[in-house]
Formats: sequence, C-alpha cells, structure tokens
Amino acid sequence: MGKKRVVIVGGVAGGATCAARLRRLDENAEIVVLDRGHYVSFANCGLPYYVGNVIQEEAKLLLATPAFFKEVFCIDVRTRNEVTAIDREARTLSVRDLETGREYRESYDALVLSPGAAPICPPWPGVDLPGIFTLRTVPDSREIKHWIETRKPNRAVVVGGGFIGLEMAENLAHRGIDVTIVELANQVMPPLDPEMAEYAKQRLESHGVNLSLGDGVAEFAQGSNESLIVRTQGGAAFDADLVVLAIGVRPETNLARDASLEMGQRGGIRVDSQMRTSDPHIWAVGDAVEVRNRVTSQWELVPLAGPANRQGRAAADAICGREVRFDGVQATAVCGFFGLTVALTGATEKALHRAEMKDYLSIYLHPNQHVGYYPGAQAIHLKLLFRKSDGRVLGAQGVGEEGVERRIDVIANAIQMKATVFDLEEAELCYAPQYGAAKDPVNLAGMIAANVLRGDADLAPWNDLDSTLAFLLDVREPHEFNAGSIPDSVNIPLGQLRLRLRELSQSEEIWVTCGVGQRAYYACRILAQHGFRARNLSGGYSTFRVLHPLGIRQTLVL
Amino acid sequence: MGKKRVVIVGGVAGGATCAARLRRLDENAEIVVLDRGHYVSFANCGLPYYVGNVIQEEAKLLLATPAFFKEVFCIDVRTRNEVTAIDREARTLSVRDLETGREYRESYDALVLSPGAAPICPPWPGVDLPGIFTLRTVPDSREIKHWIETRKPNRAVVVGGGFIGLEMAENLAHRGIDVTIVELANQVMPPLDPEMAEYAKQRLESHGVNLSLGDGVAEFAQGSNESLIVRTQGGAAFDADLVVLAIGVRPETNLARDASLEMGQRGGIRVDSQMRTSDPHIWAVGDAVEVRNRVTSQWELVPLAGPANRQGRAAADAICGREVRFDGVQATAVCGFFGLTVALTGATEKALHRAEMKDYLSIYLHPNQHVGYYPGAQAIHLKLLFRKSDGRVLGAQGVGEEGVERRIDVIANAIQMKATVFDLEEAELCYAPQYGAAKDPVNLAGMIAANVLRGDADLAPWNDLDSTLAFLLDVREPHEFNAGSIPDSVNIPLGQLRLRLRELSQSEEIWVTCGVGQRAYYACRILAQHGFRARNLSGGYSTFRVLHPLGIRQTLVL
Repeated sequence: MGKKRVVIVGGVAGGATCAARLRRLDENAEIVVLDRGHYVSFANCGLPYYVGNVIQEEAKLLLATPAFFKEVFCIDVRTRNEVTAIDREARTLSVRDLETGREYRESYDALVLSPGAAPICPPWPGVDLPGIFTLRTVPDSREIKHWIETRKPNRAVVVGGGFIGLEMAENLAHRGIDVTIVELANQVMPPLDPEMAEYAKQRLESHGVNLSLGDGVAEFAQGSNESLIVRTQGGAAFDADLVVLAIGVRPETNLARDASLEMGQRGGIRVDSQMRTSDPHIWAVGDAVEVRNRVTSQWELVPLAGPANRQGRAAADAICGREVRFDGVQATAVCGFFGLTVALTGATEKALHRAEMKDYLSIYLHPNQHVGYYPGAQAIHLKLLFRKSDGRVLGAQGVGEEGVERRIDVIANAIQMKATVFDLEEAELCYAPQYGAAKDPVNLAGMIAANVLRGDADLAPWNDLDSTLAFLLDVREPHEFNAGSIPDSVNIPLGQLRLRLRELSQSEEIWVTCGVGQRAYYACRILAQHGFRARNLSGGYSTFRVLHPLGIRQTLVL
Repeated sequence: MGKKRVVIVGGVAGGATCAARLRRLDENAEIVVLDRGHYVSFANCGLPYYVGNVIQEEAKLLLATPAFFKEVFCIDVRTRNEVTAIDREARTLSVRDLETGREYRESYDALVLSPGAAPICPPWPGVDLPGIFTLRTVPDSREIKHWIETRKPNRAVVVGGGFIGLEMAENLAHRGIDVTIVELANQVMPPLDPEMAEYAKQRLESHGVNLSLGDGVAEFAQGSNESLIVRTQGGAAFDADLVVLAIGVRPETNLARDASLEMGQRGGIRVDSQMRTSDPHIWAVGDAVEVRNRVTSQWELVPLAGPANRQGRAAADAICGREVRFDGVQATAVCGFFGLTVALTGATEKALHRAEMKDYLSIYLHPNQHVGYYPGAQAIHLKLLFRKSDGRVLGAQGVGEEGVERRIDVIANAIQMKATVFDLEEAELCYAPQYGAAKDPVNLAGMIAANVLRGDADLAPWNDLDSTLAFLLDVREPHEFNAGSIPDSVNIPLGQLRLRLRELSQSEEIWVTCGVGQRAYYACRILAQHGFRARNLSGGYSTFRVLHPLGIRQTLVL
C-alpha cells in the first residue's frame, strides 16, 4: 500500500486535532488541511475575552500556525483555500485559493470534513448596517475591537442570551459599555432549565446589564449620530452604538449536502460511531455533525470544543484502521460572568421532556462550596436529575461563586460511568475546610436523591405549588420565617415540631419547607413516623425564591 | 418490640452522624451519646485555622451542641461522661461523669463505638514541658492560642510534616511566627510519593519555613528566657518558644481491647462491611476502626472525616436493619498551604509497593489548570497510577495553585466507579477559557496513559535514569535546552528531528525528553515509525527537576 492521502477540510479544533493525531499514527501519510479562513487552530473560545481586553495579545489566540504544522507534523496547511465541491466518485475536491483566485483539484484517499458552524444571522432589515457584528473568527474579533477603539461606543445591544452572548455582555461591560441583551426566549442561557437560569438573570441585572427577554429582534435602523436602533417584535427600541449578534450557530453543511451525504434531522451531517459519513471514504467531525446524547440517546448538535477534539481523534484512529467508538456527548458546559459560574452536564429537565423521558425525578439543593465555619462560604445552587426507577444520574446544573465546575465535573464523570445517586452518596472527595465538607455537595445531592428513592423522603412537586391544597408547613425559626416565606405557609420551628404535632392533621398532605430542605427532611422523617403524610419541597425557601421570582405562588413553567 | 436503646460512645464526626441518622430512621429509639470531651460535633479540621485566626470565633467550630441534639433529634448527649468499661454479656456500660465523679451504668441494645484517635505523643524527655502542645480538641486549640497571645512566641517547632503539621506551620507563620518543621521521614506529607511531596517542600521553603527532614526528635529541654530547645536524634537543636506535636494519631481502642473485641493488624478495631465488630451488638466507626482500601484491598487506618461520616451513616442503617455495605475508603485527601494545593486519591506508588501490587504503571504530566492563552495559567503537577494489564485507574496525586482538588475529585469518582484510563480520555468536563481546556488535565492524563497501554508510547523508567546506557535525546528548542537540561542529553529540536535522523542510532535505545513530555511523545512517534527504539521520559524536564532536586542524575528513591 502506498502513501495514504488524507485531506481535512477545516483546521480548527476537530480538524486540527485530527491532523495531528493522523501524523502521530502514520508517519507516511500525506496530510493536507484546507481552510478558507485566515487562521487554523485558533482559540475561538477566547474571542470574547480578546474583545474584552482580558486577553491582550492577538498572537495568543493562534495556538498553532501553518508553519508549526509543517515543521512539527509535516502537514500541509493551506489557509484561505476553500473547498467548493466534492467529487465522491473520483475522490477529488475542487479548491479555490481565495488569495489568488486559482482553482485546482485535490485528490484524497480519506476526506475529513471539519467545517464547523457559522453564526446564525437572520435576514432582518438593517442587519448589514455598520456597527453590527457576529463573532466567530479572529478577524471578526479584530473588527469589533477596532470599532470599540475608534467609535468608543457607550451602549451595546447583544442579540442572544446564550453562553457567547453572556460572555460578550460581560466583556463589553468590562470595557465600560452599557449592555442590553435581547433574547427571544423567556430566559437567558436557553440550554438551562429556566429556574436555574434565573440565577444568571439576577446576576446580570445586579451588574447593570439590561435584559429584554421573550422578545425577538424585528429590525435594525440607523439612528442619529451614527447610532443604531434595535427594534423588537414586541415594539421596544434600544439605541446602540454597537450590536453583536450571538444568536447561535448553524452547522456548515453546504459541501456535505451538495455531495449528497446523509444528513440528520437536526440539520447536521450524519455520522456513525467511527465518525464516518454515509460515504465510506469521508469522515466528519465537530460542530457540523450530529451526535448522540449519552443520556437521552437523541441526535443533537453540540458545538463544543471538547467533543470536537474527541471526534477528531476518533476519526484519525478510524482512518488508520484502529478500533474506535465515539460514544456520544453529554453536553458538559460552563460559563462564567460577573463572578458567577454556571455549569451543566447531561440532560436538563427540558431535554428529558424533549426526549419524552418520564422516568426521572429532580432535586434542588444549596450547599456551600466549603464548610460554613471557614471564611467565604457561599452557596452552590444545584439541580440533580436522576432516573426514578434505578437512580441513574441523568444530569446536573450548578450555579454559584466557587467550586461549581468541580462538582459538575464529578457528576459529569459519574454520568459517563453510568453511576447512580447511591454512588454519589459514597463518593470520597477532597475535603479540608477551605475546599469542601466532609459531606461534599456531590454527596449531599446523592443522599437527598437516594433518600427519595428509598422512600425515606417523599418530594412535593414544586410545579404543583400554585394549585395544591396541601398544608404548607415551614419549620424554620420564626425570625427566618418572618423575613420571607411561602404565602399561606404556617411556621412551626423544627425544635417544637414533636410537641406541636396535634396542630397538624393526619387527613391532609403536609408539604414541608425550610431554608434549603435539610430541616424539612428531618421534619418529614418525624412526621412520617408519627403517621402524617409529609413531603419535602426540595431546596426549601431558597428554591422557592428562584422558582417564584415575584414572591407569589406562581411557579416558573419548567 | 419495645424501644431500641442505642448508645454511642464519642460524639464527633462518625458518632454524631450516626446519632442523627438513627433518629431519622427510628423516631422511637432511645439514643444516648456519651463523650468524655467538652464538646461534641465540633470542627476538628478547623482547629489549625482557629489557631491561625483565620477562623476567628470559637463558636463557629461548634457545629451542633447537646441542646441542639436534644431539641431537634431528641438525643441525649452527655459530654464529660467517660465510658470506662463495656460489659458485653449484660450489655451495659460503666460510665463516669467527669464533672461530678459519679459512676453509673448504662444499658444498650446496640452500642456504637466512635472514640476517634488520639495524637501520638512519644515519651520523649521533656515532652511535658510547658509550651509543648498537641492539637485535637477545641480546648487544645484554645490553649495554643492563649500561649501565642500571652507569650508572643517568635519561633515555633512543629514536630511532624504531615497534613496537620503543614496546616499548623502555615497558620503559625500567618501569625508572624518563624516555623521549623522536624519530620522523621525524608519528605514532608508522608502519604504522598516523595517526588510529589518535593513540590510541597519547595513551597514551604520559599515561604521561609525551615525544614529538618529525616531526623527525629530526641528530647525537649528548657532553654533560657522560658524558651524550649528541641534536640534531634541527628544532633541538631532548635530553639522554640512554642512546640506543636503533629506526629499523627493512634486509634483510641482501650475500651474495645478491654472488652476483647477483635482488633486488626494495624491496631484499629476490626469491623465488617456493616461496621459491626466481632460482637453482634457492637458497631464501631471513624478513626478507631480499620477499613479496607478500595484500591489495594489492604486494611488501613484512615483518620478522615468524610469516611467517618459515611461509616456513621452505615452503622445507623445496619442497626435499623437496613441493607448496607460500606465499601471501603480510597483515602482521598487535600491540604492547602501558602497558596499551594496538594491532593491525592486512591493508591500512591508507595501504597502499591506496600500491597505488593506490581501490575501498574505511572505517568507524570504538568498541564495548566486552564488554557495558556487565558491570563493566570499555572501548572498542575499530576501523577497518575494505573493498572498495566487493563488500564484501571489506581490513584492520582496532584499539586498546584488552582484546580487541583477538582481534577483529583474527578479521578476519585473514576476510581470509585472502576474507570480505566480509556474512560478518562473520553471524560467530558467543563471547559471555557478560564475554567479548563478542551483537553482537560484529566483527559490528558487518560490519553498519555492510554497511549502507553496501546503501545503508541513506550515509557522510560525514571528510576533507571541514573544507570541507563540509553541515548538521551532532548527535543526542546535550543534556548530551553540551554537554560537547563538532563546531564548528558543531546539536543535535537522536534522540528529538525526528521532531517537529523542519521545522527541517531537504531542499535541503541533512545530516551526522549522535552518540557513536559508532549513533544517527546511526538518525537517518539516519529522515531518509532522510522525504526528506532524510543521511549518517553514522562513529564519531561519538569519531572526531572522534581525527581532530581540536585540537578544531577541521581533519582529520588520511589
């Protein structure tokens, strides 16, 4: 067998990883990377921070240059070379050199498509006006920076309240710009369950970010003094000196479609577990492909760098004849802004609904990141989803100041390893006063969930709080209760409960609440053993506040 | 069946947890906690920080008072009540009230021993001199604080360089006291492998802590001006105004021994997986019992709060007739001082040697806690141990400024779930620029290990570097090489390697090194495919420096 010729289309994340891995596996292969952009292997996750001047040198964003690929890997990287068509029969590509206009053909034994995804940019009136940007490439970020430095904008509108939108909002605020986020959904961070996104919303507002949720952009118009006007479908109008569109991305699939490769229902390229497309000589990786969710088994588009890298590696292994199986993604993600960390892994409740998976329960908890007696203890707000039938961990979301990504990472590993909540109970994690607690938040999540599954603690469904006829019992101390409580709840402090059982009725269900759910759990144990039907409103008043931002018994729709 | 009477001896950590859990499971049980100390359920892990004034209020150390136990749990907690004997036949205890001198008997249906462990205090001459303290209880810490505040010591000697010793050293330094640590072992943090402890040593020294390693205390003597003299077996003498003994702890087993309960080889109480002793009516939990190591299956004494809590819970479940199985400990631990975090989980190389487990390999790596292009990137030094035959993760040790406990926690969960290094490769963890990397340190550890197991990268044994005849090839850039390199190594930068292959011989083994092992891996792949026998010195020059603190080819004994 002669030298294998592998051509990779797209040299960022998945493509770059695939190329380097191919070389390590096959010193003799001819490896060509074609990218229509100016740069390969750049740090696209760093772009918002480059705009915000947190990352100050543009050179830092360039992780590996074509010269580096040449020297270290003997890989022929050609930027500004766009592949315009695939001839699957002949196994050749049509390529255009965007600098010279020259068109040429390139042959392959194996082809890897790693074209990535492009920012969504709807055809809104005025969307081409100067001062309106998307952010996907180094030149994009350079343009925004240049605009900021020359126009010195005072007000920016970020369209889209997803992860990139929030990172942009923070970075623009960091440069002294007033920011408004316009988001079509009723919440920021649409991948999260809405009540968990509520924490993010509050943090943004407390840092002066103006939020316009549940309202989409209608059009952009030129205002006075070179400013822009962003008009929404709901009739609002925001003045802006700068607009960044961060609505999301769509997979770049033109090449694959034109070549009649099989596509998935979500609009991505369909691949098998070797990352192979419907053409046995063509692989595809990264943001352009659909992947199976490890938890829901649904096909999804998950434009994240970690999975893209793993896919690139898997494709290289497959091309070199190695046994390999890409086992899907669990969409672990983290986002930080204004001191808050928001992270998630596995399925959200939304995702379970979409997948029509009904065999699950959720709990809320609000443990500190480390023991309360060590200075600086602050709550991590956690939501854990697990299978009702066997306790398998399905997903987790966390929000807090410190230690959030750590707990979500542990749970991410647990999901990967098919752990149950009973395993989380027994996890043996790092503990010293400044690092955690003898019962780590992960242990607590496992214990609370396991208590439910063992029948030791019945949960009351938060979703039904608006309509329930249950007796609402709050077992906090009076001073806590008086500072704020669930409407219509009755206060009996935990320490008095046994003495005041006669105030309660065994004929009606009692929903018990406290600060974070712990004392309510104790109370439920007492009540259950005295013949009462008691259920815990998991997460207590801390959860009530976020599920009921108006303070009344009208629950956020989950 | 009437009311079950459960008596618990010792009300800290395991005992307190057991008591509270018992109440939750059985509202009718009579639960009595007897503790000879002044406090139950106090934060012993916080004591060094209380001495250091990091934790300022003593009340914060008291997690739950007897009044709280009474009010919330209906548990009868009696501090300053010492159990002096167990009559197993009659199922009664002899108790002495230390305040009044009254002696009485207490009966039990189930007895839980949670006596903890006592500081080791050898009968050194002068060990009773004023100014010499141990630290295990709130009154202990109060005495040390009082000594510091009234005597204003300038110089302290901490005997013992384990976790508590280092925490004490930091906290005394924090109060402006010059600290010397005297440690019998040749390293600080004896649970760690010596080369990983080297990072801790360097950090202590760079913060002005004086270390006397490999030398034990011989005696204490009174010096002038009320000072003390600490004389070592090696003939050294240190002046001190304050001495803290932090040599370790020994299980409190007098009661159990006197009652002829079965003891283990390590001097702890022997229990089964329900935490039951050799007497079917007596359970034991916490620092006083021996536990099976999850990785090595050896019996061990592991005086840690997390496992103690889990054991207390397990004992309560067992007493209430629940199915339960305590599956051992993996000795996950973390310690922080002078900005450094040191953490470990599972087996160390030392522990594998002790257990005579030879089917293992180790790798070193030095990844940043987050991407290098985001400001503040700093190395985490990691050592991963895994089974050679099937890749099972056996243990990990990590040292660094940030994110260490997070990676060790993920690996802790992986060990618990019996994960392999191939699973670590595929772990999907939180990534955004300020939180990690698309290839997280955990992924990298998995990849490096998996490359070895797949035969893609042969490791050179660091232990043999002193004696090897292999050709040492350093593939870093010349400026890096010139700034420091392994003696006798030859520099060919990676980018020139393919062009200079004729400078190498196929007849001798080539050991390849670089900065952290990555370029050496690339080089090994090139060399192997060109017919050379190449092996990677894992962790590169970063590992060399710590294994060879003198800069010569004389390796720390592992």
